[in-house]
Amino acid sequence: MALIDAGRLLSDLRELAAIGRFGTGVDRIAFSAADIAARRWLVGKLRAAGLDAGMDQVGNVLGRYPGVSTAILVGSHTDTVPKGGWLDGALGVIYALEIARSAIEAGGQSAVGIDVVSFQDEEGTYLPFLGSRSFCGDLGDAEIAACRAPDGRPLSAAMADIAVEPPPLRLDTARQRCYLEAHIEQGPRLEAARRRIAAVTGIVGIRRFRIRARGQADHAGTTPMAMRKDAGVVLFALAAWVADEFPRCGGPDTVWNIGNIALRPGAANVVPGEGEMIVEFRDPNADLLDRLESLFLARVAAAASGPVAVTSEPLLRIEPTAMAPELQGAIAAASAAAGEPAMLVPSGAGHDAMVLGRYIPAAMMFIPSIGGRSHDVSENTSDADIVFGCEVLAQAVAQLR
Amino acid sequence: MALIDAGRLLSDLRELAAIGRFGTGVDRIAFSAADIAARRWLVGKLRAAGLDAGMDQVGNVLGRYPGVSTAILVGSHTDTVPKGGWLDGALGVIYALEIARSAIEAGGQSAVGIDVVSFQDEEGTYLPFLGSRSFCGDLGDAEIAACRAPDGRPLSAAMADIAVEPPPLRLDTARQRCYLEAHIEQGPRLEAARRRIAAVTGIVGIRRFRIRARGQADHAGTTPMAMRKDAGVVLFALAAWVADEFPRCGGPDTVWNIGNIALRPGAANVVPGEGEMIVEFRDPNADLLDRLESLFLARVAAAASGPVAVTSEPLLRIEPTAMAPELQGAIAAASAAAGEPAMLVPSGAGHDAMVLGRYIPAAMMFIPSIGGRSHDVSENTSDADIVFGCEVLAQAVAQLR
Repeated sequence: MALIDAGRLLSDLRELAAIGRFGTGVDRIAFSAADIAARRWLVGKLRAAGLDAGMDQVGNVLGRYPGVSTAILVGSHTDTVPKGGWLDGALGVIYALEIARSAIEAGGQSAVGIDVVSFQDEEGTYLPFLGSRSFCGDLGDAEIAACRAPDGRPLSAAMADIAVEPPPLRLDTARQRCYLEAHIEQGPRLEAARRRIAAVTGIVGIRRFRIRARGQADHAGTTPMAMRKDAGVVLFALAAWVADEFPRCGGPDTVWNIGNIALRPGAANVVPGEGEMIVEFRDPNADLLDRLESLFLARVAAAASGPVAVTSEPLLRIEPTAMAPELQGAIAAASAAAGEPAMLVPSGAGHDAMVLGRYIPAAMMFIPSIGGRSHDVSENTSDADIVFGCEVLAQAVAQLR
Repeated sequence: MALIDAGRLLSDLRELAAIGRFGTGVDRIAFSAADIAARRWLVGKLRAAGLDAGMDQVGNVLGRYPGVSTAILVGSHTDTVPKGGWLDGALGVIYALEIARSAIEAGGQSAVGIDVVSFQDEEGTYLPFLGSRSFCGDLGDAEIAACRAPDGRPLSAAMADIAVEPPPLRLDTARQRCYLEAHIEQGPRLEAARRRIAAVTGIVGIRRFRIRARGQADHAGTTPMAMRKDAGVVLFALAAWVADEFPRCGGPDTVWNIGNIALRPGAANVVPGEGEMIVEFRDPNADLLDRLESLFLARVAAAASGPVAVTSEPLLRIEPTAMAPELQGAIAAASAAAGEPAMLVPSGAGHDAMVLGRYIPAAMMFIPSIGGRSHDVSENTSDADIVFGCEVLAQAVAQLR
């Protein structure tokens, strides 16, 4: 028995994608005119469905299910990266809208409602997870005052446009007893395994370091090799060590990346006197992250014993967040009941569920991303997979009520 | 017996350094007002010394020794790199001026004179070795017409200011039977070995390649390691291979450098989809360069057999130039006679002698660079070493006349 209206789900997703449309994708960065328009559109849809809905002065939208004192909180975010896709965030919000709306229409006796949320700035135009952190009371006025977009615009200026809205909405742990977030996978695992649903086991922790090397710039023709202090050689050796050692020392879910490196002065015929690169690694297991970090920093220290000074600076440290087992179980059971055994995978990317999971039980469900693409206008998922995912989530919510 | 006037040598060097002074160094890039002023100053000094001197419309300055039909050509260049040092090029020109001037003053019976030259744009603001190539008839009008400075200014516009000067001066192989160029070492070898004079054995050849890698940009959290096409990993592995293999396969004079690398899009959390780096290596032996090149390109080809496309593009190929043994011998003998056995070293950098050496016997002499520094305002050599070098070169010239 269908718990949702597939046509209405797809229609709402496409209507939302028209707000800030950019080619085949969407450009709806947090606090842009398109972002605020999308949030007001959502408030209208929630009210039309019978929820008590509003936007607060940070841009969070919350729709409260009518006539209940406890609820399952379901949602995601409607802001996007610049020139992003139509599903990242939007999918989870419209799933929540459709599941709550269908439940209201269906009537019934449950004392547990479905509250719908769209968090502000998950993508971090100003501050990653700004909305979910505000909602959880984990964001102070000082942090808001200090925050600027990469283009220099202060967050306070961006917020001025919606300053007339009510004070920040807050998580009510007496009412909202758990959080469920559906999302596109943003990776290739489901597609590669020909699976349609993933129950997320946890959200990986991240350790990110800037490694700086400082030697001496010299003429690359006239300086004998033995007399050089080459910052590039040190960084290349460290990068090669990472490529050799992390597969041995990491776990099956460990991923790592060196996405940026710079050498100065940067001329073909000058020994690079300075350089820096950014190394990050992720894993759902905090102990494993600790072990990798100490191995890595020991290797950095060893590199620093040569003629080139090498230093490390921690840039980012996010601890892993386990997803609530009972909620994972509900998603896996709903998927299995629909004929598709759920894949169990960690999330390699951060999500609002990471923030919510510190306060209430939280879980995530993934549906496939075609070609694993996201954060790009090519981001897509088949209509059949979109509809199937919403049915599975609706079933999981029904089990939990 | 002193063959030169040490005080006048140092005074002229300092007078020249005042033209385009930049802090403790000099900024006198080719065709700048300071460069042309320095060249006109040199013409005046040469004429005052009794030489038949002039500048041509490419900026080369030539002083012909009076009353002879054959001559030893001695010189270097008076242009500098931006924010450069006071000795790079200038030293060899003022040595030539002082040696010719002192020889004229001394009188004597030799039928072999000393012609003095300052070549234009050795440093390549517009075109490396522009002046010596023009002098040797190795520069066509089409090449001049196509040439621009890095800031976009056409060489033809730079030359317009001195278009009234005579047509290009040319090498006269019936008259100028060999070429001698003194230069600061621009490296640390003499200083490290506590030696004062080097007789240059040859000028290294250079092979320079741009290596491009093209894989696929992906989310560095959500894309499993086994499914990545990481352009950075491929370049890092190639760089590490260079660091491991070149010491084994190169010779005692081989040097190599990776001075520049870029990864795109360049974000900490995105697998680099594209990257490029520039690899160069130098050696005085052409056969060894060939062997290193084929090993290197075989390794590039092996890298290209993986999921990331890897290509190489030759950016620069300069063949080694041997210095004339009889001229090396004259320099070594003069140095030994002055009590300082000459070090025998290749030049790791290009010089005008490389161009001249294709047409007439050519040789170079190095004096120490303090700290090996050059192409910087900190470039310097002690007065004692400057004077000693000029004495040695004057002695070598005397032997060859």
